[in-house]
Amino acid sequence: MRTEDLILVSVDDHTVEPPDMFANHLPAKWKDLAPRSVKKPDGTDVWVYEGNEIPNIGLNAVAGRPPEEYNIEPTRYEELREGTYKIDERVKDMNRNGVLGSMCFPSFVQFCGQLFSKSKDLDVGLVMLKAYNDWHVDEWCGSHPGRFIPLSIPPIWDPEEMAKEVHRMAAKGCHAVTFSEDPAKLGWPHIFGDHWDPFFAACEEEGTIICLHIGSSSTILGLAPGAPIDIMITLTPLNAMHAATDLLWSPVLRRFPNLRFALSEGGIGWLPYWLERIDYSYQQHRYWTHQDFGDELPSQVAKDRFTFCFISDAAGLETRHLIGIDKLTWECDYPHSDSTWPHSPETLMKQLAGVPDDEIDKVTHQNAMRLFSYDPFAHRPREACTVGALRAEVGD
Amino acid sequence: MRTEDLILVSVDDHTVEPPDMFANHLPAKWKDLAPRSVKKPDGTDVWVYEGNEIPNIGLNAVAGRPPEEYNIEPTRYEELREGTYKIDERVKDMNRNGVLGSMCFPSFVQFCGQLFSKSKDLDVGLVMLKAYNDWHVDEWCGSHPGRFIPLSIPPIWDPEEMAKEVHRMAAKGCHAVTFSEDPAKLGWPHIFGDHWDPFFAACEEEGTIICLHIGSSSTILGLAPGAPIDIMITLTPLNAMHAATDLLWSPVLRRFPNLRFALSEGGIGWLPYWLERIDYSYQQHRYWTHQDFGDELPSQVAKDRFTFCFISDAAGLETRHLIGIDKLTWECDYPHSDSTWPHSPETLMKQLAGVPDDEIDKVTHQNAMRLFSYDPFAHRPREACTVGALRAEVGD
Repeated sequence: MRTEDLILVSVDDHTVEPPDMFANHLPAKWKDLAPRSVKKPDGTDVWVYEGNEIPNIGLNAVAGRPPEEYNIEPTRYEELREGTYKIDERVKDMNRNGVLGSMCFPSFVQFCGQLFSKSKDLDVGLVMLKAYNDWHVDEWCGSHPGRFIPLSIPPIWDPEEMAKEVHRMAAKGCHAVTFSEDPAKLGWPHIFGDHWDPFFAACEEEGTIICLHIGSSSTILGLAPGAPIDIMITLTPLNAMHAATDLLWSPVLRRFPNLRFALSEGGIGWLPYWLERIDYSYQQHRYWTHQDFGDELPSQVAKDRFTFCFISDAAGLETRHLIGIDKLTWECDYPHSDSTWPHSPETLMKQLAGVPDDEIDKVTHQNAMRLFSYDPFAHRPREACTVGALRAEVGD
Repeated sequence: MRTEDLILVSVDDHTVEPPDMFANHLPAKWKDLAPRSVKKPDGTDVWVYEGNEIPNIGLNAVAGRPPEEYNIEPTRYEELREGTYKIDERVKDMNRNGVLGSMCFPSFVQFCGQLFSKSKDLDVGLVMLKAYNDWHVDEWCGSHPGRFIPLSIPPIWDPEEMAKEVHRMAAKGCHAVTFSEDPAKLGWPHIFGDHWDPFFAACEEEGTIICLHIGSSSTILGLAPGAPIDIMITLTPLNAMHAATDLLWSPVLRRFPNLRFALSEGGIGWLPYWLERIDYSYQQHRYWTHQDFGDELPSQVAKDRFTFCFISDAAGLETRHLIGIDKLTWECDYPHSDSTWPHSPETLMKQLAGVPDDEIDKVTHQNAMRLFSYDPFAHRPREACTVGALRAEVGD
């Protein structure tokens, strides 16, 4: 396999919402209530919703800058690369990086749409959330058919409404939804009871995969007083291990046997250890903890029900036979600071040295297509989907 | 290598303190103030110190029981296997498992001797702590020369006294000391300042390795309301990853260039991921976080300064070339519920399939001997140290 022959589908990138995103998706009577993008006297752009300001964070959109310039100061749109928030420019940036398909997580509304869950009037919140999802599916993803995997946000304050929105979105072709890696940390009920059943049932029924992005509990590891920020950066992907562990031992997977979860930006190199650890824990402790997976081992259940992804993870690729080649997907993380853009194909190819071509195809796009109900080849011929073809298309 | 030819040194086992442990190590005038082992009306044994009861926890001493009988109820001495608290029986249990050498962590006084740090009169606490260390070195370890690696507990409330005790213990041949994986979680200052410098300096001077056992922050992951206990069991070793991450990015390693830490019961299978992650974080973020390891990468610093250990960890052994064979040590964890006793040699041998003999020797005993200043061959000929020889010695 040559680098230019790779076909890359990224299951974790990030939208920076453009200032006019609500313009086309709300009836006139609601428009005044929608979040507004406002430029402050110091030039900084913020969103204002119900009188509260939500800043942009520079580190969230560093694509195209060298690491020497990373910072965590608020930014203005004109400081951002246009590909972060303009859809046509985004597609060009994908082409520059040879990326065929992309699933984009939200930014200012937070991973589970928490912004709307804090609405003074939740009926208004629901209208805004639906407008957000319509914008995302119809405008952001819809403007370039076959280039994006749509991903909805849920009205997390009401599991019945979450279910309705899953169905409404599925009817529009969206079969992925965000959720929290730990809703209890957001102040909602934990996953060990039945509170979320309507939502889980709807996702199972529609074949909608639930995406748990690291940080979606608004809880960050390693941020103790006095602690260097590098600790947080190092440990944040571990949120995925916590989320997977919670789900594995919870009743959720048993009660919804076809429900599937994606551990977004969780990395994969820790999985051989974790899969072994859950089997060891089960073998040593099941008799007094009363866990029962029937004829299966916990590791098999985890491999069946979770989807994993990585940005750059040589250890995980080397041990892929311990994880399961069919559940590995790749992500670009554009435009965040861990992204390998615009050199993703080259970075990835180095780590794929020695991996057979059929396994490369699974990891780079086939798994993502199957697990996220995504079919780019319906929109363009396969030979126009490669790194080489896409880079030629952008032509700069 | 045959199973019976293995030489096994375990760098993490656990003492259950015997009821008479303070009898020989305190002047008469202090004896009434020492912790006492008391049998309660229901038959349960507890320690009483300054009027407070400290229970034994059954799960801490399940050696010899099948997993079906594990529980977390308090126990009495007569329910425990004698090898948990009687030194001659302990050595027999080591022989039954073919284990030559063992380093034993404390139980009722907690990993860092926290019990004594809560003394109403800390002068009394210091006397009791020294008596504890004297009992451990002279009586527990000293009764069978060459069979134990001594490990002291520190008077954590006073870094100057900690330093003195490190020196006093080193003079008695003890070159390992416990500390907390996160002292801030115990209410003491964090490791990012200079509070602990006298202690660290003394350890560096004496070549004393600092042992951070999982759980030594008295903080346990995964214990949220409603959460199945299996989550905690699965995630507890991750405390070691947190501790290593804290130390790596702290100023400690740079300011004490010869100071070394053991991550006790932390497992090893997560290390390839973590070592890669710290280098990636460094490469992507060092310019704004201002970390500087000079000519080295963080992964090299970690490999140089940390010692890792495992109970049962096939993934870690398979990826040992990514971790560094010279820093891997083995542990039995007798008599805790994760222990492989009395089948440790067989369990380990399965995971060592395909590992060359010279690497097996490093992992099973040579690394532990070098890193923990332990020389069993000064006390018995090498051929009497093997699994086969020790099992023949116990003769049952």
